[in-house]
Amino acid sequence: MDLDLAQLRALDATVRGGTLEAAARALRVTPSAISQRLRALEVATGRILLVRSKPVQLTGSGQAVLRLARQVDLLTADVARELGGDPAGPEHVPILPIAVNADSMATWVLPALAPLAGEVGFDLHREDQEHTSALLRAGTVMAAVTADADPVPGCTSTPLGGMRYRPMATPAFARRWFPAGPTPEALAHAPVVVFDRKDDLQHRWLQAHAGRDAAPPAHFVPASADFVAAVTLGLGWGMVPDLQARGDAAHLVVLDPAASVDVVLHWQQWRLRSATLDRVREAVLAGAGRELDPVA
Amino acid sequence: MDLDLAQLRALDATVRGGTLEAAARALRVTPSAISQRLRALEVATGRILLVRSKPVQLTGSGQAVLRLARQVDLLTADVARELGGDPAGPEHVPILPIAVNADSMATWVLPALAPLAGEVGFDLHREDQEHTSALLRAGTVMAAVTADADPVPGCTSTPLGGMRYRPMATPAFARRWFPAGPTPEALAHAPVVVFDRKDDLQHRWLQAHAGRDAAPPAHFVPASADFVAAVTLGLGWGMVPDLQARGDAAHLVVLDPAASVDVVLHWQQWRLRSATLDRVREAVLAGAGRELDPVA
Repeated sequence: MDLDLAQLRALDATVRGGTLEAAARALRVTPSAISQRLRALEVATGRILLVRSKPVQLTGSGQAVLRLARQVDLLTADVARELGGDPAGPEHVPILPIAVNADSMATWVLPALAPLAGEVGFDLHREDQEHTSALLRAGTVMAAVTADADPVPGCTSTPLGGMRYRPMATPAFARRWFPAGPTPEALAHAPVVVFDRKDDLQHRWLQAHAGRDAAPPAHFVPASADFVAAVTLGLGWGMVPDLQARGDAAHLVVLDPAASVDVVLHWQQWRLRSATLDRVREAVLAGAGRELDPVA
Repeated sequence: MDLDLAQLRALDATVRGGTLEAAARALRVTPSAISQRLRALEVATGRILLVRSKPVQLTGSGQAVLRLARQVDLLTADVARELGGDPAGPEHVPILPIAVNADSMATWVLPALAPLAGEVGFDLHREDQEHTSALLRAGTVMAAVTADADPVPGCTSTPLGGMRYRPMATPAFARRWFPAGPTPEALAHAPVVVFDRKDDLQHRWLQAHAGRDAAPPAHFVPASADFVAAVTLGLGWGMVPDLQARGDAAHLVVLDPAASVDVVLHWQQWRLRSATLDRVREAVLAGAGRELDPVA
């Protein structure tokens, strides 16, 4: 295949912006130049890469070529920095798409990434346990902070540390619903806050303590900081990470000091020798070392 | 159609829990009882309602019957409360599925709903402008806090008030990137934080002030509280709602006092005479009245 850097960049920008017009603005060329490059790339690969919907959609072949485009872009930016010049123009900042689980994004990941924010553009995706491996495989993200330890084919996996979740509530909520502590009877009736349908942290603990049939009223609050806000406002009890029991949530009480669930997080990334990706990896590992519990 | 309340409740619980086993636990019956009720409901309606995948998936007909099931459940709970008894058992709390836009969920909606948390289970869905009308139409949600004013067929729409967004950054970020203020040249280079691909608040203001071709490095942070945290950590500037410039974000500076974008929010809900839904509506309208800007 005889591939052209400008064509690969047109594909990347089109997927990022969603339309040929947005890609044209980002690359400062005309939409018809983008269109020509995409067509040339499809001729060179012999495959349809994009469905021209709004926003555009990648075909299976398109995903493979996008993954290539992003690797080439990152490696080019690395070399440019090493050589002290920048063939792609002074403003070319490589963009790193990373999947991050919601609770990490709400706590330790952003402070860890902040020092690199001037040299890398972070394109964060909300990690969804079931889809993260698909995102890594498809080339939508280059790396992930995930509870999934098994490396996706073509990726490495490094343990980061653990987040400890404990059942918490406001003191007033605990007095009203758990006057005698979290007994099975009290747990069967006390409202509980749950992140979403896939979040089984609350119900795992609930069923271990109150039996399989416990089905108290539940509130679903599908955003990490808002989930903790709901517990802090007294909507229910919930499994709150120790890392998030700060600020307004610092006055939450732990319902059962003996109860905790540890979720071990991992850094998965493409096998790719890139100085930029290595720096991001180091920053994430350092942040995890400061904030997460060491893995036994 | 000869429909049975227990059958409708089995459908609701199965969709909520995702599996027949989860529905059985919630309703305290055996999985085979759930299975029989679902089959009876399909016979009575003459339609396939559910694809038995994990999690189950509703068919088009299933959506219509689910909508009916949830209305009946809500109305039954209303009457039970009015009569002072509760035929569905003392623990039956009606569940209200509501779509809420991310910035409202992160600010004023949870405090507005908190006083009702003992009598209603809130099943909040992240509003996505393009999907909210589909969620309302499909019966997945009964109401929505949305920027979309046009009422979905079968729904009413009430204006709630405005959220004001202004371009903000940390004082250190402003000194480094905007020493002479947000000039077109500075805006073309300063990193910007964006919520996701559909968030055009930053780029609308950017293009009005720095021209159509301005394409500064962007960080994408797709959670409302985390978006503000990213601006507060100095990753970039961003359009922050005045309501969120509190706490850690209180020290953010406004880049251009003359610049603001007002997003008017609306309450859409099914046309349904229900005392519970009416109480939730009143609580949302009162919360909006306290926190949002009056609509001109």
